[in-house]
Amino acid sequence: MKTLNIAVVGYGNIGRFAVDAVREAPDMKLAGVVRRAASVKKSVVPPELAGVRVVSDVDELGKVDAAILCGPTRSIPETAPQYLKRGIHTVDSFDIHGEALWKLRQSLDKAGKASGCAAVISAGWDPGSDSMVRTLMLAMAPRGITYTNFGPGMSMGHSVCAKSKKGVRDALSMTIPTGTGVHRRMVYVELEKGAKFAAVEKAIKTDDYFAKDDTRVFQVESVDALKDMGHGVNMVRKGVSGSTHNQVLEFNMRINNPALTAQIMVACARAAATRLRPGAYTMPEIAPMDLLPGDRETLVKTLV
Amino acid sequence: MKTLNIAVVGYGNIGRFAVDAVREAPDMKLAGVVRRAASVKKSVVPPELAGVRVVSDVDELGKVDAAILCGPTRSIPETAPQYLKRGIHTVDSFDIHGEALWKLRQSLDKAGKASGCAAVISAGWDPGSDSMVRTLMLAMAPRGITYTNFGPGMSMGHSVCAKSKKGVRDALSMTIPTGTGVHRRMVYVELEKGAKFAAVEKAIKTDDYFAKDDTRVFQVESVDALKDMGHGVNMVRKGVSGSTHNQVLEFNMRINNPALTAQIMVACARAAATRLRPGAYTMPEIAPMDLLPGDRETLVKTLV
Repeated sequence: MKTLNIAVVGYGNIGRFAVDAVREAPDMKLAGVVRRAASVKKSVVPPELAGVRVVSDVDELGKVDAAILCGPTRSIPETAPQYLKRGIHTVDSFDIHGEALWKLRQSLDKAGKASGCAAVISAGWDPGSDSMVRTLMLAMAPRGITYTNFGPGMSMGHSVCAKSKKGVRDALSMTIPTGTGVHRRMVYVELEKGAKFAAVEKAIKTDDYFAKDDTRVFQVESVDALKDMGHGVNMVRKGVSGSTHNQVLEFNMRINNPALTAQIMVACARAAATRLRPGAYTMPEIAPMDLLPGDRETLVKTLV
Repeated sequence: MKTLNIAVVGYGNIGRFAVDAVREAPDMKLAGVVRRAASVKKSVVPPELAGVRVVSDVDELGKVDAAILCGPTRSIPETAPQYLKRGIHTVDSFDIHGEALWKLRQSLDKAGKASGCAAVISAGWDPGSDSMVRTLMLAMAPRGITYTNFGPGMSMGHSVCAKSKKGVRDALSMTIPTGTGVHRRMVYVELEKGAKFAAVEKAIKTDDYFAKDDTRVFQVESVDALKDMGHGVNMVRKGVSGSTHNQVLEFNMRINNPALTAQIMVACARAAATRLRPGAYTMPEIAPMDLLPGDRETLVKTLV
């Protein structure tokens, strides 16, 4: 088994867990961590990165097979091509569904093919592994409805939005599934001195991010005391196979969110570096077995 | 969208539902049904096949893109190559896990590559869609245990075994999940005149097929009155992503068994005829999106 040299790009929530998952992978070696120049200069290396090369430019790491891009979603369209053109396969967890995702796939498909590299985009759990299961469920029962119910768990996007309101020191928005793909938002806010709760509540509830959902806002002493990275999903499809109705399919998870995202990105880095032809792929376009290390004969005998 | 000409080979339980699923597929046309010469000669065409070409030799059907092989598992290693060598892609639901499955994959891989065709083997729900989910779960949490719990539902293999015992007119063996991949066998037998229940019970319980499981045998007036084609699965994995423990993943189904098997085989026929390179594949070696009709752009925008 060839050992793959992996760079982790960005060292936020996902980046930390990606370092972890690369270290646990039997077929990978952590080439190093790429951070913004400012973070590297500070040279305050977190203890768990002792002995790891932390650089601001991937070229300093020597030969890298694949880069796991853990920066913000909006940075991906600009960042990924810089790695692809260096001959480095990429994985990102770009998380805006629909048109934006398709555009990214098109642009990285071109960049990847130009340099002979594979880019796996939107790798994580949704988009990501959920998308694979949704696709499989559709193949199993072509007519019917699939509901994806998220949570209970923290929504990063909604929390950031709530925190941005005037008078809010910190905020946590929990996604609560109420079935059939409908969600309640439970928002916990820590206020700055002198801020009025009623005004904050109104600002949050009327924001486009929250306006369509049943949103409840609560003032708390400490948002930090409430934070936990657990999340979940319940995905259910009731549909028709051939002309046979009432086929019921369901997928559930209760997981640590960044740990799962990072693990899936690492598995996709393996697929990109060892199995996929040049171009860009979303996860449903990848064979599940390409995500695993090990020889095909053993995998077929034990998993199929 | 190109229309695929599909032959259904064999007209037992799965074959009937395969005809159904081909008829419902937007990108397929039923070229005809291939049956044993004896069945064709009888010329008692079931009413639902009115207007369908029923032949004993696929060559009579003109151009066929893919053949859905619905004959018994043990016939597949001999049958499939006959279609592949004619340039017809194949799908089967060969259901013996492990060594036998790998051997079939090797032999059809060779046959497929020789004629430029793809063969999808062991397509159904287990092996099949369950195998895809098991593989994905392993990628999501590389360390841990996956339990596949079957049922409640009828086991064809166990029913046939019980029926083969002396004094048994008809038999039904239900698979009952008792958790952690352990199953109880509830066996219902209809006895021939003069047969002794105690002897039948002993013959069933001591057969290798049943000896390792908790097996309960019951005498009933009519086995036929108990038969229903519903089945189910509960697949659960608790494992580790990176170094984060207690990641819990679960897949459940409550389905009509032959209808789902046939629908999945039809989806795999599509993948074989439109997406896969020559050779043989198990389902975890296929990208889920290759199972679906429709253009990639729409699929990526709506499913990912």
